[in-house]
Amino acid sequence: MVTSAALLYWIMLAGVALYAITGVLEAGRKGMDVVGACAVGLATAAGGGTVRDVLIGRPVFWISDQTYMLAAFGAALAAFFLLRFIKLPARLFLIPDALGLALFTVSGTQIALAADTPWLVAGLMGVITGVAGGVLRDILCNDIPLIFLPGELYAIAATAGAGVVVGMQAIGLSHELAAIGGFLAAAGLRFAAMAFRLRAPEWAPRE
Amino acid sequence: MVTSAALLYWIMLAGVALYAITGVLEAGRKGMDVVGACAVGLATAAGGGTVRDVLIGRPVFWISDQTYMLAAFGAALAAFFLLRFIKLPARLFLIPDALGLALFTVSGTQIALAADTPWLVAGLMGVITGVAGGVLRDILCNDIPLIFLPGELYAIAATAGAGVVVGMQAIGLSHELAAIGGFLAAAGLRFAAMAFRLRAPEWAPRE
Amino acid sequence: MVTSAALLYWIMLAGVALYAITGVLEAGRKGMDVVGACAVGLATAAGGGTVRDVLIGRPVFWISDQTYMLAAFGAALAAFFLLRFIKLPARLFLIPDALGLALFTVSGTQIALAADTPWLVAGLMGVITGVAGGVLRDILCNDIPLIFLPGELYAIAATAGAGVVVGMQAIGLSHELAAIGGFLAAAGLRFAAMAFRLRAPEWAPRE
Repeated sequence: MVTSAALLYWIMLAGVALYAITGVLEAGRKGMDVVGACAVGLATAAGGGTVRDVLIGRPVFWISDQTYMLAAFGAALAAFFLLRFIKLPARLFLIPDALGLALFTVSGTQIALAADTPWLVAGLMGVITGVAGGVLRDILCNDIPLIFLPGELYAIAATAGAGVVVGMQAIGLSHELAAIGGFLAAAGLRFAAMAFRLRAPEWAPRE
Repeated sequence: MVTSAALLYWIMLAGVALYAITGVLEAGRKGMDVVGACAVGLATAAGGGTVRDVLIGRPVFWISDQTYMLAAFGAALAAFFLLRFIKLPARLFLIPDALGLALFTVSGTQIALAADTPWLVAGLMGVITGVAGGVLRDILCNDIPLIFLPGELYAIAATAGAGVVVGMQAIGLSHELAAIGGFLAAAGLRFAAMAFRLRAPEWAPRE
Repeated sequence: MVTSAALLYWIMLAGVALYAITGVLEAGRKGMDVVGACAVGLATAAGGGTVRDVLIGRPVFWISDQTYMLAAFGAALAAFFLLRFIKLPARLFLIPDALGLALFTVSGTQIALAADTPWLVAGLMGVITGVAGGVLRDILCNDIPLIFLPGELYAIAATAGAGVVVGMQAIGLSHELAAIGGFLAAAGLRFAAMAFRLRAPEWAPRE
C-alpha cells in the first residue's frame, strides 16, 4: 500500500526531475556543455526550496537525503544526451511545469507555516519555492528572469495558491484540504492564464 | 512618548520602503510587469540585511516580523501603480538614498559587532547591509552592479561609516555615539561625493 | 616546526589570495573601479566555501577568523593598483589556479564528509567549493559563467578529485591519503586537459 506521504515524496521527486529538464533545455539554448547543463539543471530543480530553507533557517532539504540530487542529476544528464536528438515541442513541458509550480508552491507554504513564520512570509516562501529555481536558471544563463517580464500569469498563480493555503489553514481547515485548495487555485489559474492569455499589470500598459 | 528604539524601528521601515521604490524604478526601466517590480523591490529592500544575517548565522530579520515585508510590498505596489503617471526626477531619490545607506551601514555594523564577529568582518557586514540590496537589484535586472563601476563614491562612503563605528566602539565609546559618528561619516562623505563629484580610483585612471 | 595543519592553513590563505587576484583581473577587464575590484575579488576568493557552508549549515569559514579576508583584501588591493602597470600573461595564472582548484575541491569534500552529508552531496560540495567562486565572479561581471561553456575540462577535473576523495574514504583509507589522491586526480586531470585540450561533451558536438 502506498501512503499519501510516500506518494507526495514520489511526486516531489518527479517535480525536481522535471524542473531539472527545463534548466537543461535553457542551458542547451545557450550552447553550454554538460557541466553547464547539470549546474543549471540542479539550480532550477533545487533553487526554490534551497532559498526557502536558507531564509527560514531549516536544514536544506536535499543535503541529508541525496535522493533529490540523484533525481535531478539523472534527469539532467539524460536530458542533455537525449534532447539533442529528440526535438520536443516546448509547449509539451508547460502542463507538467504548471503542476510542478502548484505542487512546490503548496508544499513550500506549508513548510513555512509549520516553521511558525507569519502568514505573509509563509506565502512568500511558497511563491519562492515555486519560482526561485527558474529565476536562478535565468540568472545563470545571463538573462533577465523570464517571470519578471510581461507574460501569461505565472508567479501570480503561485501567489493565489499560497494565499489559499494560508487562508484555509488560518480558518482552521485541515492541512490536506488546504493543500488541495491551494493546488487547485495555483494550477487552475496557471492553466486559465495559458488558455485565455491572462497577463499581469505592466508598467506601460498595452493599448 | 517615542523611545529611541521605536524611532529607529520606524526609520528602518522607512528605509526599507525607500529601497523598495528604487528597485521598482529600475524594474520599470527594464519593462518588467508587477511581479518583476515587486520581486526587484523586495530584493533591493531586504537584500543587504538578508545576506548579512545568512552569513553571520542570525535569523533573517524579516522572517519573524513581517512588518518589513508589509512596508516593502506596500511601497513597491504603490510605486508600480503610481510612478507611471507621476514623473519624478531621479535625483529626488538621491538624498533619502544617502540617508538610507548611512543608516543601514551603521545598523549592519553594530549587529555584526554584537554577534562577536572580528572588526574587519563587522565592517564588511555593515557595507554589505548598505549596498548588497542594490547589487542584487542590478543582478536581477541583468546589469553589472552600478556601484562596481566608476562613479561618485558610494560603497566607500559606507566603508568610512562602518570604519568609524568599529573604531569608536573599539576605543570604548558608547554604541549611541558610535552610531551617530558612523552615520555622519557615511552620509557626509556620500553628500560630499555628490556635491564635489568625488570618485574612487579606477582601473584606467582618466587624464 | 611547521605542522601539516599549519601548512594547510597557509596554503589555503595563498589559494584565497590567488582567487581574489583572478577576480580583480576580470573586474579590470570590465572597467570597474576599486570597489568593484575588491567586491569581485572577495566573491571569487570566498564564494565557493561560503556557498558550501551556508548549504550544509556550518558557520561560514571566514566569519570568525578574519585572516582569510585580510588575505583576500590585501591581494585584491595590491592587484588592483599594481596590475595596471605590470602586464602579466593570463596563462601565468593557470598553473596556480589548477592547484587552487584541486586544493579547494579536496578540502570542501572532506569538510562535507566530516559534516555527515551523503556521498553524492559531499562530492557536489567539493566541486562547489572549487568552482562557485568563479561562477559568482562571472555573475557579478554580467557574463555567462565561463565554466558552463564549452572549454577545457575544469569542473569535471574537480568532480574527479571529489570522487576520488569520497571513494578512498569510503573504502576506509586515511583522510591524508584520500586528500593526496583527490588532489592528484583533480590537478592531474586539469593539467592534462590544458596540455591535450580535453573537453567536456557539448550540446551540439563539433565535427
